[in-house]
This record gives sequence, C-alpha cells and structure tokens, in this order.
Amino acid sequence: MQQTVGDDAEIDYARMTPREFRELSRAGGYRRMTTRNVCLGHVQCAMVALPEKLALDFMIFCQRNQRPCPVLEVIEAGSHTSRRIAAGADLRTDLPLFSVFRDGKLAGHVPDAREHWRPDLVTFLIGSNTSCDQALNRAGVQTEKHRYVLRTAIETDPAGPFRGPLVVTMRWLTPKEAVIATQLTGRFPFNHGAPIHIGDPAAIGADLEHPMTGNDPVPPMPEGLVPVFWACSMTPQAIAQAAGVEFMITSGPSLGLISDLRSDQVCMP
Amino acid sequence: MQQTVGDDAEIDYARMTPREFRELSRAGGYRRMTTRNVCLGHVQCAMVALPEKLALDFMIFCQRNQRPCPVLEVIEAGSHTSRRIAAGADLRTDLPLFSVFRDGKLAGHVPDAREHWRPDLVTFLIGSNTSCDQALNRAGVQTEKHRYVLRTAIETDPAGPFRGPLVVTMRWLTPKEAVIATQLTGRFPFNHGAPIHIGDPAAIGADLEHPMTGNDPVPPMPEGLVPVFWACSMTPQAIAQAAGVEFMITSGPSLGLISDLRSDQVCMP
Repeated sequence: MQQTVGDDAEIDYARMTPREFRELSRAGGYRRMTTRNVCLGHVQCAMVALPEKLALDFMIFCQRNQRPCPVLEVIEAGSHTSRRIAAGADLRTDLPLFSVFRDGKLAGHVPDAREHWRPDLVTFLIGSNTSCDQALNRAGVQTEKHRYVLRTAIETDPAGPFRGPLVVTMRWLTPKEAVIATQLTGRFPFNHGAPIHIGDPAAIGADLEHPMTGNDPVPPMPEGLVPVFWACSMTPQAIAQAAGVEFMITSGPSLGLISDLRSDQVCMP
Repeated sequence: MQQTVGDDAEIDYARMTPREFRELSRAGGYRRMTTRNVCLGHVQCAMVALPEKLALDFMIFCQRNQRPCPVLEVIEAGSHTSRRIAAGADLRTDLPLFSVFRDGKLAGHVPDAREHWRPDLVTFLIGSNTSCDQALNRAGVQTEKHRYVLRTAIETDPAGPFRGPLVVTMRWLTPKEAVIATQLTGRFPFNHGAPIHIGDPAAIGADLEHPMTGNDPVPPMPEGLVPVFWACSMTPQAIAQAAGVEFMITSGPSLGLISDLRSDQVCMP
C-alpha cells in the first residue's frame, strides 16, 4: 500500500531540516511508508505516550532494558511539546502518523492525534537505530538491503505490567561490514549501541517466519554474509501494547519523530 | 576524624570482592572515610531512596541530566534489595554509612538504615566516577592527588521540584594525562562519560572557595597541570536535598555501594 503521490519522488527528504520535516508532517504532507533516509544524520525516535499512572513503571522498564529502550526525552503529563531534542515540536501532530491503542488493541492510525490526546499522558521519545544509517553509509556499510525486524526468545527484564520478548533489527552484512558496523554502532550507546548478537539467528530464537515488518518470511541468506542483530526500538512499543495499557498513543509503524539531535553526537543532549 | 582502627591498614580492601565488602559493611566493619580504592575495578554507586510520589519526577530529572545522574538500577517501593547490579544486596545495611534527611535537612548518619526505612521508598543507584579509577591507573593517569568536588554555576535541567547547580569532580592532570583521561572516560557513558569541561574553572563558575569535600579552599594549582572537570554523582544527592524532600535516605558522603559490575563493562547491564 505505497501511498507515494505524484511528485513526491522529486522531494529531497534526506536534506530537509528536521524542523521543515516536522512542519510537513503537521500539514499532512508526508505520505511515504517509512521515515528511513529522511533528514539524514539526525536522530529519529519512536514515541510512546501513556497514562501517568503507568509512567514510572514504564520508565523503570526502559532503564532495565536500556539497549532496546534508550530514553532521549520525557515530556510530563499536561504537555505535548518537546523541549530538549525537537524543540517546539507538537507531539500530537509533528509525526507523519500515529497509532492509537485502547486496552492493548490498535484502535486506528491517525495523521493528527489532537482529538485523541489526553492531559494525563506522559510521553517518551526513544532513540531508533535508523539514526545510525548515515554514519554506517559514510563508513561503507550498506543499510538499504537485508534488514529485518524480528521477535526473539530473549526475555526483557520486566517492570510492573511491562514484560515480553526483545525485538531486534537483523542485518545481513559482509564480514568486513559486520566488523565496521560493530565498532561504529558501539559509539552510539543512546541509539541501541553495539550489536546484541552476531551469527546464528536460532541462538537468540529470532523468529524468521514472522518478521514484524512485511508479511513474508525472511528469505534464505545469500552466501558469504553474516547476520548481525541490534536491539530495536520497536521493543518498547510491542511491550506496552502487550501489557494491555488502557490507552496509549505511539508513533506509527516505521514512521518516527525526527529530532534536532545530530546522530554524530555520541553523548546525551 | 579518621576512624581507622588498629589493624585496618592490614586489610586489602582493593582486592576484596564486592560481596565480601558488602558483608563487611553490613557487619559495621568498615570504618574508613571513603570507599575509593575499595574493590578496585568495580562500579561504585551513590544511592538515593525517596518517597514513591517523587520517584517519577526524580527519574525524569536524572534522564535530563544523564551526565551527572547515570541511573544504573531502580528498586521499586516495597523492596530494599538490589537484583541487577549488586545481586542480593540489602540497601538498608550493605553500605558503610547512610545519611537520613527530613525536609531537606540532614537528620543524621547511621551505619544501619533498617529502623528508618519506609515501604514507600523507591531507590536509585547512580554510577560514580570513582568507578573509573582503576582504568585510569592502568593507563598511567594518577587518581590519588589533586581531586576536588565543586559546585558550579551550570544549572541542571529541572524536573518537578528538582533543580539546582551541577556538581563536578575537578582533577589537575598533566596535559598528557588530560588527553588520555578524556579518551578513556568517554568510553564509560554510564559512569559520567567524558569531561564536561577542560581549562579555566571560572568558565563554569566552579566554586574553588568552598569545595564540597574538606573544609579548606582549593590551593593554587601547581604549574604545568590542566584542570579537567567531570559531572559528579554528588549532583543528584545535592539536588534532592535542596528540593527539601520530606524524607530521604542516601549513601553516606564518599561512601558508596560497591556493585558487582566490572567497570570495564562499557555497556549497561
């Protein structure tokens, strides 16, 4: 269901500034299925907004599972505006798409979450490993092909109602790329950091039959490549959904918030 | 007020295991004024335990000020036992000394906090830069001399009632040591990471007249050395105290919890 409109291919989303892209999103003008390659070199975030009474448990969950859940900003109940990493962004409108959940079930996708927003929502912005794509490309590691989001058999460390399996991004890389990517992503501890595993998918119970993006099983791996696995920011969203949270708004699938942070900033803002 | 007892000098605290040291602390058997150089190579933590109703604000404060406040474990209300980084440690007894605060004022120091503990306390364990001493020593950087804990004029980013100035550790190093120490501590983002400043103390408003440890002003710096400043885990304790928290128990001054984590582990547990 590619929604690309007529002249969309002309637009250089990669070179847009984060502020321009957030304004475009607010106006409902971005219709691609993913924010990958948008505003290259800037940190992208998954968003999870849930009721304040669950916020401490969720934040403790993120602390216990820092690799998949690097929290980059928390916006308190009563506010829906980023102050630190996407200054002035309205978190109800400035992403391309939102998912609304009721009692853990998807109630719908909306391009504007204002009518659904509640004053008791605490909002978490969580770094995504899409953020490292430009750095990997600069180092000669391809990021376009052979990328799959998979559930594993690794249990996260629970907190309150939040528990469930780790979700990973698997990439098939050449051995040389695998070494470079391991070193390079290790420099970004607040964007999932180094791989959590290299090699046999079965060793971590990666579910190759049911990738979380797309509908088809993972095809056979081409000869000479190595599977490399990074913790993925789809973990906190999947965990919050599985917890059956009474009400929750998240970023839409594969569509993140583009922050003002440069990915090359190794440290926290 | 050195409290060293007779044969204390004989004991090799540096080579003790964290579990042995925690047992010794529980028995009230450690009487030195600092845990520096204890269980060398293991991560040391400051502890802050405060009422659950303030825990989310405090955790958001720590997230917004990750450099001085790297949270390594959170223990929920109702528990007083570490599970992740000092497995089985009783956080009411397994530190050498505790500070008890009421309405932001120090009510006393106690070697055993059991009679003061409350079931509504949420406990935060926060990495200390003492943890990097062994790695610095291995790299030829001295850590014994020229070390001062100072208030600065840099304001932390507030959350709820928590606000106030950043506290730093200043070390005077040779230029060569400064370069090595900057590179090396940058590898430990969950133990305050790289320096926040190098050079003129006045540029960050460092208060050389009133160091937070000891009673005397900082003496003149010997020629040829460079001041290097790291965010310090005394920040969260000072901030929580300044917030006038109704009730709080913290680790005693310069006396941390010794965790099981190896300092050489770059990543989160």
